[in-house]
Amino acid sequence: MLERHGDEGDFVASDTVEAFIASLKRPRAIILMVKAGDAVDGVIDELSPLLDPGDILIDAGNSLFSDTDRRVGMAAAKGLRFVGMGVSGGEQGALDGPSMMPGGDRSAYDQLAPILTQMAAQVDGDACCSYVGPGGAGHYVKMVHNGIEYADMQVIAEIYDILRTTHGLAAPDIADIFAGWRDGDLSSYLLDITIDVLRRRDDATGGSLVDLVLDEAEQKGTGRWTAMDAFRLGVVGTSTAAAVGARVLSAGKVLRLRAAGVLDGPAATVRPLDAAATDDLSAALLAARIVAFSQGFDQIAAASKEHDWRIDLKAVAALWRGGCIIRARLLDRILDAPAREDSGDPLLLAPWFRDTLAQTQHGWRRTVGMATADGVPTPVLASALAYYDGLRQERSPANLIQGLRDEFGAHGYRRAGSDDPQHTDWARSGTDAQ
Amino acid sequence: MLERHGDEGDFVASDTVEAFIASLKRPRAIILMVKAGDAVDGVIDELSPLLDPGDILIDAGNSLFSDTDRRVGMAAAKGLRFVGMGVSGGEQGALDGPSMMPGGDRSAYDQLAPILTQMAAQVDGDACCSYVGPGGAGHYVKMVHNGIEYADMQVIAEIYDILRTTHGLAAPDIADIFAGWRDGDLSSYLLDITIDVLRRRDDATGGSLVDLVLDEAEQKGTGRWTAMDAFRLGVVGTSTAAAVGARVLSAGKVLRLRAAGVLDGPAATVRPLDAAATDDLSAALLAARIVAFSQGFDQIAAASKEHDWRIDLKAVAALWRGGCIIRARLLDRILDAPAREDSGDPLLLAPWFRDTLAQTQHGWRRTVGMATADGVPTPVLASALAYYDGLRQERSPANLIQGLRDEFGAHGYRRAGSDDPQHTDWARSGTDAQ
Repeated sequence: MLERHGDEGDFVASDTVEAFIASLKRPRAIILMVKAGDAVDGVIDELSPLLDPGDILIDAGNSLFSDTDRRVGMAAAKGLRFVGMGVSGGEQGALDGPSMMPGGDRSAYDQLAPILTQMAAQVDGDACCSYVGPGGAGHYVKMVHNGIEYADMQVIAEIYDILRTTHGLAAPDIADIFAGWRDGDLSSYLLDITIDVLRRRDDATGGSLVDLVLDEAEQKGTGRWTAMDAFRLGVVGTSTAAAVGARVLSAGKVLRLRAAGVLDGPAATVRPLDAAATDDLSAALLAARIVAFSQGFDQIAAASKEHDWRIDLKAVAALWRGGCIIRARLLDRILDAPAREDSGDPLLLAPWFRDTLAQTQHGWRRTVGMATADGVPTPVLASALAYYDGLRQERSPANLIQGLRDEFGAHGYRRAGSDDPQHTDWARSGTDAQ
Repeated sequence: MLERHGDEGDFVASDTVEAFIASLKRPRAIILMVKAGDAVDGVIDELSPLLDPGDILIDAGNSLFSDTDRRVGMAAAKGLRFVGMGVSGGEQGALDGPSMMPGGDRSAYDQLAPILTQMAAQVDGDACCSYVGPGGAGHYVKMVHNGIEYADMQVIAEIYDILRTTHGLAAPDIADIFAGWRDGDLSSYLLDITIDVLRRRDDATGGSLVDLVLDEAEQKGTGRWTAMDAFRLGVVGTSTAAAVGARVLSAGKVLRLRAAGVLDGPAATVRPLDAAATDDLSAALLAARIVAFSQGFDQIAAASKEHDWRIDLKAVAALWRGGCIIRARLLDRILDAPAREDSGDPLLLAPWFRDTLAQTQHGWRRTVGMATADGVPTPVLASALAYYDGLRQERSPANLIQGLRDEFGAHGYRRAGSDDPQHTDWARSGTDAQ
């Protein structure tokens, strides 16, 4: 690094941590990019005694938001200023500028803002970097970003699976179909790189490289954290939850091979793909993506309320427009929608989303229905549709659940139109049997 | 209580905790039935100083297993013996004997066993009470019991919803259909009380009471805990997760009413119910119930391994045969199946389950497909089917996900048949473009 950049003036080589710290101008600002967990606390413990009041520590790793909450407080007690900053962009972001989601000490962020906003990806002249909120707010938003990423990747994989399995298409042909969608409402980084991956040929065999990749998805934890915290908050995060479930199942390939020989399914039939079925698939992909983003923003809103973080959801959408993995045209639509904080509505009810879902729901239903009949698993496409139908359900069957809970556990229920808790002896048949 | 039972000799009235403790024979055994959480610690703190070494505390509430783990250790440090005991049975269980899932201090359980096994429900001469394992094992098994209960109730509610919405049937007619299934493989307590609830008439109006119950399901947390711990363990717990999501959605009735006016769905059509459709619904209910139990036992197995609890899964199935909310004929099938500990397989692969799923999968698919087309949400029926199809999938689309992860984050992937981690420049098109 120094060999390439040592003459640019901003890079310093140090043999010891002490020399490194001493070489920095005060107030010092140190960015940590360490594996989330105990290692972060270790580095903080090592650096803290060498720092002076007002110095700034920036954790730019994928730390769990509650750890960041704790560290912001711990650092403040020592007179230090702590910034927990979510960063998304991967390898390309490191070169072209990532999306940055800083939270924690506000004065520290304000001081760093000129540098950070310059480092970040730029979209329409705006930097994809702005203060998210106090404590762990920045890492929370990054966590949900990753949860949406899990769901969106899984939906793309489900559409790919249908094209491959039901329609018998090869990877380059599937890439061409995805390429036909890339300039419309589905325009997104994940779609673009899906096309790359599907088109990539293997240097050794000349075949499609994706066909040679082991079908066991790995995970590092942020998707799981997102799903778990949705449950803790009492919001619906089923898209991420289903995507995590699919990764777990995929990872058990030995078991899957065994189960494939034991469990029965529908007879496999390959059907040619026509234009109508192609449109249905793009409709399903767009609709499920909308649900994933809507659930994600709902979760951020709920967490913001719980922690009193006062996160500006539109500012989050703006941050995600460039540099990050889930950057997508959809985010412009979110910026155009009424603010979630004002309407209190999930994104789905905003005009463009409502209208788009009204158009896409038919193809979405046909896609899920066909995959269900064909035995192709579509956990996220199907759970997102169940969410859509559950949300718009005037009369849910939860009245039966409440009746059951009251019969077996005397948990009580409410009668429609009354606030008084009721309890009934359900085993008695009532009026007409008396 | 004392007015009714004071002459039976086993009940003592005490004005103070001190007098109460002093009145007990040593070693004392005290059952706590307190709301889970801080209240339990409060009672323990209050009682501990008054107790002698070897005395026994039994927490028979719905405590979180990790709290019980901690309390077993804390009590042992004070020379006390702590038993965390899951109890299921509700109101009826309190009279006829519940299912008991005791864990924690083994010597304490052995001492209490003669009394507890007498109090418990009896099935074929066996008490529904046996030692589950150390630490929080008993409360863990009770938690998963409740998770299965959430999933099973939601599946019943989804079938009810289809019968009500798609087929336009009234509650008593739906009860008759369920009654036609009660003597077969679907035989269960939850089905029995569903029939009660659907048949119950309102004393005031004479109409079906269930139609007057507010359709907002409540929850006390054990379903959510089950779903969260499945994620933490890295096992698939999608049935309970989807059921919890459905309860959350149902509870937001104000939002649902607003969304119902905004979000588009398929045109409502009521279709008569024929015998084939009825069979499809019972097939779907049985298949989804099997998945809920299979995921639950998988989760217990994973937790047992993590905590080294050495839980005997068949003993758990035996405990659940009587007294508890999820008692069902299915449990006898589980007792007949090869032991999960030996086969390492989920329940689905055992002969009776495999064969039953082979028969039921067609009706299950038609049920989910129809509900999907009709706009009736079936989150648990659909997610269970996605799990079934994902489990038996020889070739999952996770190869694409691994390719994407490697392109955006250089996370690496494995090539089928090789253990060496690979990394590729996916944006380059490969061989044929060179």
